[in-house]
Amino acid sequence: MQIGVIGAGSIGLLYACYLSIYHQVTIYTRRKDQARQINSKGIQLIKSGVQSTYKVTAKVLDDGLDHEDLIIVTVKEYHLDRVLNTTNQFRNVNALLFLQNGMKHISLFEKLNNEVILVGVVEHGALKINDYTVNHTGVGITKICSFRNGEGVIQSFQKGQHSDFGVLVAEDWYKVLSEKLIVNAVINPLTALYCVENGDLLSNRFFLSRMKNLFIEVTSVMNVNTTNMWERLEHICIQTQNNRSSMLRDIESGRQTEIDAILGYIIAEADKMGKSVPVSTFLYDSIKGKELQRGDSSCHS
Amino acid sequence: MQIGVIGAGSIGLLYACYLSIYHQVTIYTRRKDQARQINSKGIQLIKSGVQSTYKVTAKVLDDGLDHEDLIIVTVKEYHLDRVLNTTNQFRNVNALLFLQNGMKHISLFEKLNNEVILVGVVEHGALKINDYTVNHTGVGITKICSFRNGEGVIQSFQKGQHSDFGVLVAEDWYKVLSEKLIVNAVINPLTALYCVENGDLLSNRFFLSRMKNLFIEVTSVMNVNTTNMWERLEHICIQTQNNRSSMLRDIESGRQTEIDAILGYIIAEADKMGKSVPVSTFLYDSIKGKELQRGDSSCHS
Repeated sequence: MQIGVIGAGSIGLLYACYLSIYHQVTIYTRRKDQARQINSKGIQLIKSGVQSTYKVTAKVLDDGLDHEDLIIVTVKEYHLDRVLNTTNQFRNVNALLFLQNGMKHISLFEKLNNEVILVGVVEHGALKINDYTVNHTGVGITKICSFRNGEGVIQSFQKGQHSDFGVLVAEDWYKVLSEKLIVNAVINPLTALYCVENGDLLSNRFFLSRMKNLFIEVTSVMNVNTTNMWERLEHICIQTQNNRSSMLRDIESGRQTEIDAILGYIIAEADKMGKSVPVSTFLYDSIKGKELQRGDSSCHS
Repeated sequence: MQIGVIGAGSIGLLYACYLSIYHQVTIYTRRKDQARQINSKGIQLIKSGVQSTYKVTAKVLDDGLDHEDLIIVTVKEYHLDRVLNTTNQFRNVNALLFLQNGMKHISLFEKLNNEVILVGVVEHGALKINDYTVNHTGVGITKICSFRNGEGVIQSFQKGQHSDFGVLVAEDWYKVLSEKLIVNAVINPLTALYCVENGDLLSNRFFLSRMKNLFIEVTSVMNVNTTNMWERLEHICIQTQNNRSSMLRDIESGRQTEIDAILGYIIAEADKMGKSVPVSTFLYDSIKGKELQRGDSSCHS
């Protein structure tokens, strides 16, 4: 397949590397300089301390898209509007795969006329080192679901699979995205507000109590079967006990967080249902407020 | 009058100094060493950079109380049980004045047989420098109310008043304590959780939104007229805009906070009324959790 990857952050760089083994990949960047560096140095992938070079073509998104069989959009949710609106070229793309966290982006799909739309959930750990280097810190999988006429593209996409980069096809996109959303909605805002590692949410009995309470509130808004969901959350906190969540790291670095895509979505859904979600609302404003402080109120362990 | 001051923290030291100008004062400490130091060096009061010595007798509380016309209890609410229970001697005291923050201590009064009980609210800024030195950082007043037969004692107590240490007598103890409680319940937990100065609660629109919401929740539980209360809160935040609240400083220093006396009281009152106070409950556990982390998740500006 001819695959275009939009966005050259940690996930974009990671996907471009692994997909380039079996497919023809072009990575589309926002900045000219980044495209230039990737074209001259290739993408450097670090895995368990070993660095390998992947020769991938890089282009600047504003210069237009080549013909691609599939476009994978890896930018953060809060950049989606800009990416989709500034480039009319997306109209002519046949198939789009969206890999954003949260579920706010789903509402955009109604406005897209593309024939095939896929959504995916990324369960890899990846850390961008510089404009052309990414560290694959945690091997996971990608869960892919068809949102609209996606079956054929999924079949082609699945053909080549690297053992460190498995693809799982799931039927129910709402279920897959909801489950990831619930995990993100519970772990990320609490760890970011408390300035603690994921494991502290379980080991500190007061934080655990708030985590349970938030879990109940968040799941009450989602239309999914929550059997074993709490156990899964506990399991994730244990597995990642010494990790600082992405939202905590965003706050610590004075970056924008994904709170809109995550708790913003929960609050909007609750609004539609006429439900009150006081803790989600409190946490949403708390994280937005911490973003505004830009490091003035950051935390250090 | 013969006045005994229990507790030699910042407030105890401050009161002992000013009261010793017009009254015979003994300060009762927990530690022998502190009593010894105060007896040998006097209490050093720093006011606008000028240091003065006040000769005050210090004794160890466990050695027993002298005959006093009035005992002023200045220890934190969370030490009240220990102070009142370990010393049977309180039974023979005629008049007691309690200066704790919050309102949790009010429920203890039913068990006390003392003839006169007073409650007070301290509006001074004071910083303990060491065991015998206190800095009077903000001149305010003390509001005193009779809880039980206090009128006569208040008259004698009022006779000598230093201009930097005024005493205001108020009728309605519930009103006076409630108003201070509402201020503490709104400003302290939010600043401690967000790691921000008091003024940031107004200047950051997301924090302001949460502050308003918490104000509505807290006042819904209190049986007081809240006219102008919000304006008063805003005024306090402006006046103290560069201050770090006592609860924030407690968290930063890994000390116990007064959250039980403040939001713990609000939650208990809400329980009695069958009301749900989700934000207060969230904040209560959040601060208790931060206490447990003991600096692991502290914040630095």
